[in-house]
Amino acid sequence: MTPDSPGDLQIHAAAYLRGAQERIVAGLEGLDGGRFGEEVWERPGGGGGRARVLSGGNLFEKAGVNFSEVSGEMDAALARGLPGEGPTFWASGVSLVLHPRSPRVPTFHANLRCLSRGETVWFGGGTDLTPYYVVDADAVLFHRSLRTVCDRHHDALYGRLKAWCDRYFFLPHRNEPRGVGGIFFDYFGAGAEATAGEAAPPTATDWENDPERVFPFVRDLGEHLLDAYVAIVARRRDEPWGARERDWQLLRRGRYVEFNLVYDRGTTFGLRTGGRTESILMSLPPEARWRYAAEPEPGSPEAASLAAILAARDWAAAGD
Amino acid sequence: MTPDSPGDLQIHAAAYLRGAQERIVAGLEGLDGGRFGEEVWERPGGGGGRARVLSGGNLFEKAGVNFSEVSGEMDAALARGLPGEGPTFWASGVSLVLHPRSPRVPTFHANLRCLSRGETVWFGGGTDLTPYYVVDADAVLFHRSLRTVCDRHHDALYGRLKAWCDRYFFLPHRNEPRGVGGIFFDYFGAGAEATAGEAAPPTATDWENDPERVFPFVRDLGEHLLDAYVAIVARRRDEPWGARERDWQLLRRGRYVEFNLVYDRGTTFGLRTGGRTESILMSLPPEARWRYAAEPEPGSPEAASLAAILAARDWAAAGD
Repeated sequence: MTPDSPGDLQIHAAAYLRGAQERIVAGLEGLDGGRFGEEVWERPGGGGGRARVLSGGNLFEKAGVNFSEVSGEMDAALARGLPGEGPTFWASGVSLVLHPRSPRVPTFHANLRCLSRGETVWFGGGTDLTPYYVVDADAVLFHRSLRTVCDRHHDALYGRLKAWCDRYFFLPHRNEPRGVGGIFFDYFGAGAEATAGEAAPPTATDWENDPERVFPFVRDLGEHLLDAYVAIVARRRDEPWGARERDWQLLRRGRYVEFNLVYDRGTTFGLRTGGRTESILMSLPPEARWRYAAEPEPGSPEAASLAAILAARDWAAAGD
Repeated sequence: MTPDSPGDLQIHAAAYLRGAQERIVAGLEGLDGGRFGEEVWERPGGGGGRARVLSGGNLFEKAGVNFSEVSGEMDAALARGLPGEGPTFWASGVSLVLHPRSPRVPTFHANLRCLSRGETVWFGGGTDLTPYYVVDADAVLFHRSLRTVCDRHHDALYGRLKAWCDRYFFLPHRNEPRGVGGIFFDYFGAGAEATAGEAAPPTATDWENDPERVFPFVRDLGEHLLDAYVAIVARRRDEPWGARERDWQLLRRGRYVEFNLVYDRGTTFGLRTGGRTESILMSLPPEARWRYAAEPEPGSPEAASLAAILAARDWAAAGD
């Protein structure tokens, strides 16, 4: 079985994502002042990627921006979970996770990807913000920035993708959202069946079933991915913090580890399918803590921050 | 549907496990000098448990010894994975994970459990050692102590359970065993079908299909669980260490987190079935690190230790 050859849409998507990695890394190097390392890798089953990682930067304790374009055969369990037909797949994506040193600066995650199986091509992705100390104005800015991008493509898009994100980036065993959310989508272009039951509310439209219309949205999102985050960093990076804030950051990072290793589809899928472990686990924080039955002191800034996360507010509307 | 009532064997098993928790905690308090906290909890679906946790001790950075006895209904996905018949289950177990402060002292894990579904009653459990700096003599002592217990019950038992442990406590995405192994078993008493394909080599015997013969082994293992570990602690606790050894310990603890959250059946089963999160995640280390593509320096003690773990030796035989 030879892997599927990518069609025009996939070739354009992979080219876009490859370029996006470079622009994102350049932007982050400007923000940090440090330089990202680079490793090009090949996947034994087909394809490969480029990992760009910055460790011990000025702003970022650890920041990773991965690009990959891979293809090959799937096992039956994997194939059952994907739209389209046939035993082979193709996938290209860019992923970034930014773990700042300062507990005042939120952790940032984003992913944009294009996949295909047989004739079916689809896009997925999203971005979410995980503050250690929630500042309402920052969450509002982040969500309004995403709403602005979404509104340029479909007027029901932001609400649908915000709800999907709230549902996806959630730790059932903690009964906690991962952070203040953002947007999330998957299987856009693969047809209404593929997205059924995935989001609340289910408002699949012709728009999202057409990969040719979704791709411009993915590009637009990619070009504005860091707009709000850069502004949030500027607001928070010089704020003071100490051992107490660091401890809270490390405990909350433990939740980030729990989400990624237990629930995150990209991670569990990647580890099960023989992906490149170091690239997949680049998302893990450089350091994390677990303390038995740890709870923030009532009335503390940590308790207020956790309450703000648990509230899962409609941040964009809060800013209107 | 009312949960199954436990029969005599289960009542005796739960009573034994409950007492074992107390004796283990008393032993560990003697070793550490600190005191374990205690929390009694109830499971909304039926049953409950007692968590004993020591944080910030002299020897142990974090040590937890859990007892639970729970029963209730299972969902279909869970039921498919278990021997026996019917929609209800009963389970009792004691689990311990010891994370010492010193990188010279290994992390220790053990679990003993009795489960039932319908008329089928079975035992599972095991213990494994995760050194940061492998000392051959310690791994030999640990394995010989386990072999001595196993040999009192069946002459093929140690070899079977050692192989099962090597296979179970393994991280496929890292291609690494978790540590120097130990013993592991499951479904003992539930019949040959339940254990088929679980261990290498598959040497199921009448002995292991009889829960009345397995229970004395579980008790014997419980009574000698810490014998070798106490001796290893005495050998290593006063050895010097510094920032370098601490860093290596934290990176290796990252692997422990990966194993527990991605592969460990007790953890993933517990989190998916609404178990008590703080008790389940008691196994996670108090602190861990991840560094992109970190590898020990060739020729270093860390490289030698990793090589010893990768070799997955027949430690008990090495001591003969």
